[in-house]
Amino acid sequence: MLTTDHGLIQTPCFFPVGTAGTVKTLTPDELETAGTQAILANSYHLYLRPGLDILKSAGGLHRFMKWSRPILTDSGGYQVFSLAGLKKVRENGVEFQSHIDGSYHTFTPESVVRIQRVIGSDIMMALDLCAPYPCSHGQAKEWHEMTARWAARARDADSVSPFLYGNRQNLWAIMQGSVYEDLRRESAAALVDMDFPGYAIGGLAVGEPKAVFHDMVALSAPLLPEGKPRYLMGVGFPENLLYCIEHRIDLFDCVLPTRNGRNGTAFTWKGKLIVKAAREKENFIPIDESCDCYTCRTFDRAYIRHLFVAEELLALRLVSLHNVHFYQSLMRTARDHIHAGDFATWAKSVSADLQIEEPSNLELQ
Amino acid sequence: MLTTDHGLIQTPCFFPVGTAGTVKTLTPDELETAGTQAILANSYHLYLRPGLDILKSAGGLHRFMKWSRPILTDSGGYQVFSLAGLKKVRENGVEFQSHIDGSYHTFTPESVVRIQRVIGSDIMMALDLCAPYPCSHGQAKEWHEMTARWAARARDADSVSPFLYGNRQNLWAIMQGSVYEDLRRESAAALVDMDFPGYAIGGLAVGEPKAVFHDMVALSAPLLPEGKPRYLMGVGFPENLLYCIEHRIDLFDCVLPTRNGRNGTAFTWKGKLIVKAAREKENFIPIDESCDCYTCRTFDRAYIRHLFVAEELLALRLVSLHNVHFYQSLMRTARDHIHAGDFATWAKSVSADLQIEEPSNLELQ
Repeated sequence: MLTTDHGLIQTPCFFPVGTAGTVKTLTPDELETAGTQAILANSYHLYLRPGLDILKSAGGLHRFMKWSRPILTDSGGYQVFSLAGLKKVRENGVEFQSHIDGSYHTFTPESVVRIQRVIGSDIMMALDLCAPYPCSHGQAKEWHEMTARWAARARDADSVSPFLYGNRQNLWAIMQGSVYEDLRRESAAALVDMDFPGYAIGGLAVGEPKAVFHDMVALSAPLLPEGKPRYLMGVGFPENLLYCIEHRIDLFDCVLPTRNGRNGTAFTWKGKLIVKAAREKENFIPIDESCDCYTCRTFDRAYIRHLFVAEELLALRLVSLHNVHFYQSLMRTARDHIHAGDFATWAKSVSADLQIEEPSNLELQ
Repeated sequence: MLTTDHGLIQTPCFFPVGTAGTVKTLTPDELETAGTQAILANSYHLYLRPGLDILKSAGGLHRFMKWSRPILTDSGGYQVFSLAGLKKVRENGVEFQSHIDGSYHTFTPESVVRIQRVIGSDIMMALDLCAPYPCSHGQAKEWHEMTARWAARARDADSVSPFLYGNRQNLWAIMQGSVYEDLRRESAAALVDMDFPGYAIGGLAVGEPKAVFHDMVALSAPLLPEGKPRYLMGVGFPENLLYCIEHRIDLFDCVLPTRNGRNGTAFTWKGKLIVKAAREKENFIPIDESCDCYTCRTFDRAYIRHLFVAEELLALRLVSLHNVHFYQSLMRTARDHIHAGDFATWAKSVSADLQIEEPSNLELQ
């Protein structure tokens, strides 16, 4: 369990992604009803749009988007490499061009703390350099070392700048090191030495084979301190979440439930369901008969499929809503089994039904 | 007041448009909360997609879309001319090409009754020929006469075909005659003679000048029987609704609240508000401080504007929701003033604030 000034977070916990200050298609009320304890927002996107002036005038992101529970913000380091153009990495920080208008910007460890102060998130991330896959050992080493130096600078910036809206903010650091065991160990050691209140594992689920992903999670989690939250960024598919929970990951975020929802793919306890598939066209049963979300309590697959075929926006809402419910239900059930002491047995019993997927770019934030 | 097997409709009443079996972006729950008594659905669209087989398997549109209150369906006559391609008008009916896939179809007065039987709407419309604007007197005469002959055939078809789902269906006829007083009189006389339980006024708000539109409404309404509902199709802007209510129109439908909502234009008691305008970017007040809809109770203009700028789908939902609330609030207040006996005074007092708009193609269904 984590404590923030916007409430407790019971772990393991999955954060739906609210990139631009909205979990796509859904309202804060709907997220709460689904059992969402906290969301992730993207510092990169919010910095560009609506921008810091508006966020500051609003009194921070909680008040702007009317979300009263905890918010975690990423560092922007990942988006700078995945979305923005023409970047230069220097010791001071990273230069990039906005993916929206091509304008030039620089993120430094200090500026990213400032940005997150203005956002007012409960959990902030120190600026990191996320190695792509594949990445040479040399570059991965150089970047995780830079990430560690930036984490120290972020910590210093955090320690001297006041909170803007009354609520306290926690700064966490992000482990890197690509798929190299020695670098993961070095990265963890350097960051743990700085005694952050929480740690993220970055640089995974970026295209590496599933076996490598699993190995890296199993290796990385124990390198981080017992008793502090461990957050695996940008993951992922339900089956992978159970694997990672078994390997002591506490927190996750991923666009999958909402992105796949908008694409007409629903997650269920029996695997993925392609709602817009022709075989559903006269199937008058809910997406998941065991689900108690508004979508499943109200609508049949045949209707939702029709909405997708007719390109009706309600379709995107309904499946996104179901998917967020499903992810929260998965986490709630996982917590119950952890408390009951039979998590491993349970996870094994349901993993076969939760469809196996390769980690891919789809898992990215 | 109208009575249907799916409930009462208090008049004057505005029907949000659920073209393809969904009022765009909104759920049935949200429509009910807004005070929506009934919706309109399009026979043309539903016939093409999802098609009659699926609608019949579902047990009709109410069950398919999970809307338990009354549904009115138009005849498809308007869509055939506004959306479909390559049409031929013959005595038997109208041939057209689907706007979706170019396939050829024919609507006859009898087939359109059959289609609406499968939809299961509470109020059905007889197939009509909607004259464009401008339209010659000769063509307008030919088409309103054809419309009257088709209405008689539709009545005959209705009288011999059973209801499919238990609920009774009412067949109404549509007055035509373009902007010609003599033709409006002829059309009304012919249809009233057939003793339909309700009448629509069609062929207005199709591009004619506002003064002509007003004159035609003032002329047409009294030609229809007292004590039977009068429905003005495809109208309209708030100020026009008040004018038409004063001229004894009972029922309206229009895409304006939802279409303009998706375009970022909100309707309020003080006129139109362009929510996505730059001037709203740091305006931390609701769209309408007097409105009790979820959007206005929860979000500020600055946030909704941000959602539009960031092309977030939640924006479309929020303003559509507000607009449907506003239209229902306008109708509810109009009913209250009719009951209080001071409608004309009240309408005059608020019309100046409800922004004046020319009837235009935007008002079309």
